[in-house]
Amino acid sequence: MTTTGSEPDADRGPSLRPTLPGSSYTDRATFDAEAEHILEARWFCAVACADVAEPGMFRTVDVGRESVIVTRSREGAVTAFLNVCRHRGARLCVETEGQVRRTFRCPYHAWSYDLEGRLVGAPHLPRMRDVRKEDLGLVTVAVREWLGYVWVCLADEPPSFDETVVDVVAGRLGDPAAVDRYGIENLVRGKRISYEVRANWKLVVENFMECYHCATIHPELTGVLPEFAQGWAAQYYVGHGARMGDRVGGFTVDGSAGHERLPGIDDDQDRRYFAVTVLPQVFLNLVPDHVIVHRMFPTGPDRTVVECDWLFEPGVIESGVDVSGSVELFDRVNRQDFDACERCQHGMASRAYAGGGVLVPTEHHIEQFHTWVRTMLGEIATLPGVADVSYEDWNGGAA
Amino acid sequence: MTTTGSEPDADRGPSLRPTLPGSSYTDRATFDAEAEHILEARWFCAVACADVAEPGMFRTVDVGRESVIVTRSREGAVTAFLNVCRHRGARLCVETEGQVRRTFRCPYHAWSYDLEGRLVGAPHLPRMRDVRKEDLGLVTVAVREWLGYVWVCLADEPPSFDETVVDVVAGRLGDPAAVDRYGIENLVRGKRISYEVRANWKLVVENFMECYHCATIHPELTGVLPEFAQGWAAQYYVGHGARMGDRVGGFTVDGSAGHERLPGIDDDQDRRYFAVTVLPQVFLNLVPDHVIVHRMFPTGPDRTVVECDWLFEPGVIESGVDVSGSVELFDRVNRQDFDACERCQHGMASRAYAGGGVLVPTEHHIEQFHTWVRTMLGEIATLPGVADVSYEDWNGGAA
Amino acid sequence: MTTTGSEPDADRGPSLRPTLPGSSYTDRATFDAEAEHILEARWFCAVACADVAEPGMFRTVDVGRESVIVTRSREGAVTAFLNVCRHRGARLCVETEGQVRRTFRCPYHAWSYDLEGRLVGAPHLPRMRDVRKEDLGLVTVAVREWLGYVWVCLADEPPSFDETVVDVVAGRLGDPAAVDRYGIENLVRGKRISYEVRANWKLVVENFMECYHCATIHPELTGVLPEFAQGWAAQYYVGHGARMGDRVGGFTVDGSAGHERLPGIDDDQDRRYFAVTVLPQVFLNLVPDHVIVHRMFPTGPDRTVVECDWLFEPGVIESGVDVSGSVELFDRVNRQDFDACERCQHGMASRAYAGGGVLVPTEHHIEQFHTWVRTMLGEIATLPGVADVSYEDWNGGAA
Repeated sequence: MTTTGSEPDADRGPSLRPTLPGSSYTDRATFDAEAEHILEARWFCAVACADVAEPGMFRTVDVGRESVIVTRSREGAVTAFLNVCRHRGARLCVETEGQVRRTFRCPYHAWSYDLEGRLVGAPHLPRMRDVRKEDLGLVTVAVREWLGYVWVCLADEPPSFDETVVDVVAGRLGDPAAVDRYGIENLVRGKRISYEVRANWKLVVENFMECYHCATIHPELTGVLPEFAQGWAAQYYVGHGARMGDRVGGFTVDGSAGHERLPGIDDDQDRRYFAVTVLPQVFLNLVPDHVIVHRMFPTGPDRTVVECDWLFEPGVIESGVDVSGSVELFDRVNRQDFDACERCQHGMASRAYAGGGVLVPTEHHIEQFHTWVRTMLGEIATLPGVADVSYEDWNGGAA
Repeated sequence: MTTTGSEPDADRGPSLRPTLPGSSYTDRATFDAEAEHILEARWFCAVACADVAEPGMFRTVDVGRESVIVTRSREGAVTAFLNVCRHRGARLCVETEGQVRRTFRCPYHAWSYDLEGRLVGAPHLPRMRDVRKEDLGLVTVAVREWLGYVWVCLADEPPSFDETVVDVVAGRLGDPAAVDRYGIENLVRGKRISYEVRANWKLVVENFMECYHCATIHPELTGVLPEFAQGWAAQYYVGHGARMGDRVGGFTVDGSAGHERLPGIDDDQDRRYFAVTVLPQVFLNLVPDHVIVHRMFPTGPDRTVVECDWLFEPGVIESGVDVSGSVELFDRVNRQDFDACERCQHGMASRAYAGGGVLVPTEHHIEQFHTWVRTMLGEIATLPGVADVSYEDWNGGAA
Repeated sequence: MTTTGSEPDADRGPSLRPTLPGSSYTDRATFDAEAEHILEARWFCAVACADVAEPGMFRTVDVGRESVIVTRSREGAVTAFLNVCRHRGARLCVETEGQVRRTFRCPYHAWSYDLEGRLVGAPHLPRMRDVRKEDLGLVTVAVREWLGYVWVCLADEPPSFDETVVDVVAGRLGDPAAVDRYGIENLVRGKRISYEVRANWKLVVENFMECYHCATIHPELTGVLPEFAQGWAAQYYVGHGARMGDRVGGFTVDGSAGHERLPGIDDDQDRRYFAVTVLPQVFLNLVPDHVIVHRMFPTGPDRTVVECDWLFEPGVIESGVDVSGSVELFDRVNRQDFDACERCQHGMASRAYAGGGVLVPTEHHIEQFHTWVRTMLGEIATLPGVADVSYEDWNGGAA
C-alpha cells in the first residue's frame, strides 16, 4: 500500500497545516481525559434559564461523565449539584425535568436536601447526634447566568467566567456591548431540536469553525449569505458579520422575509450573521430577528448530543406567527453538518488518517482549537501569558 | 466544585460507617475478580430440583462467566458439567431446558457424554486406540441438593457446604431445625418471575440486607409487617422474625388472608416473616403459608438477573386456588427494590461517590458483607479463625 | 471442579493433536493483530469483477479494519484505495456500491480524486501554489484480477500473488491448469447470499477444512457425496475430488439433475466436488455444472460476514432456468456450518477450553492452519524455507 506520491508531512509548504491524529477522535482514554480536563473543568452552558424559571423547577443534564441537577432556590438564585445522594449514591432525579416544592427527597431512603443542596432531613437523623448535617450536603457545582442560560463548572476552582466566556464573545464581536444589544436573555424559545450525532465533539467544533465546506453542503445557507460560498470563516475576523445577499429578505430557508429586527441591535448588526464559538461546547448565531444557540453534550468518543434553540422576540411567539421558515434554515444546516461529521468519524480509525489530515488556509484557525485542546490536556506546556493570549485571540467559528 | 461543608471522612463519628467505593460497582475487572473468587468459587444456588426431577431432564444456567448444565443421572443423582464439548469447544446445549434420553450428544461432531459426563462415544473413536476416554469427560461441577434446589460449586476444592450454606441459615434462624419445619423441598412452585436488573449484584444484596428503605418505598410490605417501618433489619437479630400486624390476615398484597399455615412450622413461626441471605446470591423468605426464594445471576458489572420463585403446599396448587394476592406482594417489593438498585447504579460512577457513601446504624451490618467480599477477593488478609467467625456471625438480610 | 479423569495434555497419544487456546477466538487484541498481520497483509478476495465491470463502477468493502473502495479506471484497469479523504478524513463513499463518472468527490469539501486515486481538484487549490497534488492522492491498495474476482492487498510490500494464491489452488488441485478449465471468470452469478455469522473467522476456516462433522450436520451434502460421511476431508489429498453417489443426478439439494457440465472441464473433473481454501478468507467449491465462492469478511473477534456466490454458465442464467436446487444445497450446508461455528464461539471463553481442545486424525491438517496463523502473528519463528513449504503444502479444506 503506497500513496500515489511521496508523503507530504516533512516538507509541507505553508498552505497546509496539520490536524490532530485520528486516534484523538476515537480513543476512550482521550475522551475521558477531555471529560476531566475540559468538559468537567471549564464553564459549560447547561440549561436555559427559562427552564428553571421558578423556585424548585429543575433540569438534569450530563456534563462530561456527570449528571448535574440545575434548579432555583426560593430566594431566586440558580443552584446546581451532582445528581447523587450522599448516603448510598442513588440518583436523586431520574427525570430530565420537573419541579419540587422545597426539597429534593431521595426516593430510596428519603434523605432530603433543600434547593441549595443542604441536607435537611433523613430518617433516624435526630438520633444520630454525632452526624454533622453540614458534612452531608449535595456536592455543589459553580453556576452563572448569562445570555439566558445557566452555565455550570464542576472544577473545584473554576476559571474566570469573564475571561473564558464573556471576553471570548466580546473579543469575537469586537465590542463588549455588541452581544447585549440582542437582548438574548429576554428572547423566547420558538423551537428546540435535539440531534444525536454519531461523531466526536471536536469534529462538530471544527465543522462549526470553518466555512470551506459551505459551498459544498450548504446551498440554503450560501443562498442567504453569498460570501459564505467563498469559504472564509467570516467570524475569524474580529467584528465581522456575514452580509445577507442583496435580494434576500431574511435569514430563512428560502430567503423570504423573517420578522421585525430585534429592538436593541444597531444598523451595523442589521442584515448580518455573526457566529461565535465559546469553547468547549457553545455556538452562538446572531441574526437580525432571532438568535440560535447550540449546546453540545459529548457522551462518548463517537457520540455527541447537540441541543439547538431558536430564540425570538416575545411578541413574535405570542402572536403565533409561523417561525418555521427561520427554523428550517439552520435545521437543514445542522443536518448537513452533522452528516459530514459522521462521515469523518468513520475515517478517524483508518491507517490513512493515523497521522491526521491537513488544514487549508481557510481552516488554519482550527489549529488554534487543537492547540487549546492539547493545552487543556497538559500535552503542551502553558507558557506564562501565552495560553491566555492564544485563547483570547481565538475567536469563534461559523457553520 | 465544593460540598456545602467540610469532608466527612476523617473525623466521622460512630453513627456513620463507610461503604465500598463506587468503582467496586462499575469496573469490569472487579466483576471478573468477583466471578472468579466468589461466583465461581462458592456454592451457588443454580436450579430448582423440580426442574431436573427425572433422569435426563436438564437446565442450563450461567454461573459467573460459565454456562453450566445441571441434569440427573439414571441412578437419580443430580450431576452438573461445564456446557462445553471437550473436542472442539462447542456449547453442548443451547437450550435453557429440555430432556435427553441417555446422553448429551454434541450437535457438531456427535461426541456423546452420559448423564455423569463420561465420554461414551464419538465417530472414529474405536480406531483411536491410544485415546483414553476417561481423559475426555465433561468438566464436572460439584453439586448438592438442599431446600429443593440444586447448588453447584465450580471450585476445584469447594468450601464446606455445611459451613457456608447450612450453618448460615441455621445461624440466622437460631435453630438448625427451624428451616426444616417449612418443608421447602416438598413445596410446589406457584409462580416464577425473572427480573432483569440493570444494577450490580452487590447493590441487590445490600438492598435485601437492610430495611432502612422500607418506610420509603415499600408501603404494602410495611402494611403487613409494621415493624419494618422502623427501619431495623429484623433478621439482623438471631432468631427474630418480623411479626405481622394485628389486623393483617396474611402475607398478601392487601393483608387479606392467605392460605393454610404450612403443616410443619411451629407457633413461634406463625404470623412471622423470616428472611435469610446466603451469600453470594440467595435470599430466602419464610412466611407461614409459603416460601419465596430469590436467586441472583450476575451477568456483568451493571446487570443482574433475579429469578424469584413462590412456593406453596402441593394442595394449594392442586386446588387451583388463586395465589396472586401472595405473589403480588413480593412482586411489588421486588420491583420497588430493583428500581432503587438501578438508581444507585447510575450514581456509582460519579465523582461524588468515588470514595463511597455512608451506612447509618440500621445499615451497619452491610459492612460485614463488604468485608466478606473484600476477603474473598484477597484484598483483606484472612486471619486464623477471624473470617469464619465474621462469616458465621453474618446472618442475613431483609427486604 | 474436576474432570472425570486425569488431564489429557502431557501424555496425549498420537491420535489427538492440540488446537489453539480459547482466548485466540475471543480477544480483541488477537483480532487486531490478525487484522494487521493477516487480513490487511495478505491478498484478500474483495469483490467480483462483474461488480466493477465498467469504468467508475465501485464497491466498498471492509478489509480487516479498513474500508476499501474498489473501482475501474477509464483505461479499464481495476484500482483500489482506502476510503478516506486525505483532507480531513471523511469517508468518501458511504454507499456499498454505485458508479461515478470520472471522479470521487468528497461530499464534505469537494476534494476530487480520479479513478486512479489522484487528487485532481479542490476548492482554492489553484491559489495554494506550494501544494503538490501528487502528495495528496488517495492511499492506494495493490490489486489483482483472478478467477473473476478482484483481490487486494493493503501491505506496503504485498507477498507474491502467484505463490500465496495461484500456487495454493494449483497445489491443491494437483495441476496448474485444473482451475482454468472451469472458466470461472466467464461464469455469471446466479445467486449471492450474505451471512452474518456470530463467530470468529478462524472457526469458519476450521469448519470448512474438515469433514469429520459432515455425517452429523450435513445430511443433504453426504447424500450427494457419500464419501463425506466417512469424515475424511477429501481435499486434503492433492488432486482428489469427492465423487458423487452413483444414483445422484447432480450437485443439488435432493440429488436431482443439475445443468450441463461446464464446457472446459475434463472427464476426471466430471461428477466430482473439489474444494480449495485460500487463506485467509476464500473457499472455492468446484462442481461439474457450477462454482461456489465464499469470501469471509471478519469484522470482530466474534463476528464474520460470509458472502457466498453461486456461478453458472451464462447460458444457464440467460435461459431463466431454475437454479434453486443447486443453490439450496450449499445454502443449507452454510447454515448448518455457521450454526456449528456459533455454538463453538460460545464455548471459547470457558475455562473448559482455556487450553484449547483436540483434533482427531481427520482434523489433523487443521494444525497446519494454526501454525500458519501463529507464524503470521510472529508467535512462531519462520525458518528459512520452512514457512513457505508448510504453506504451499497446506492445501485446502472442505465443508
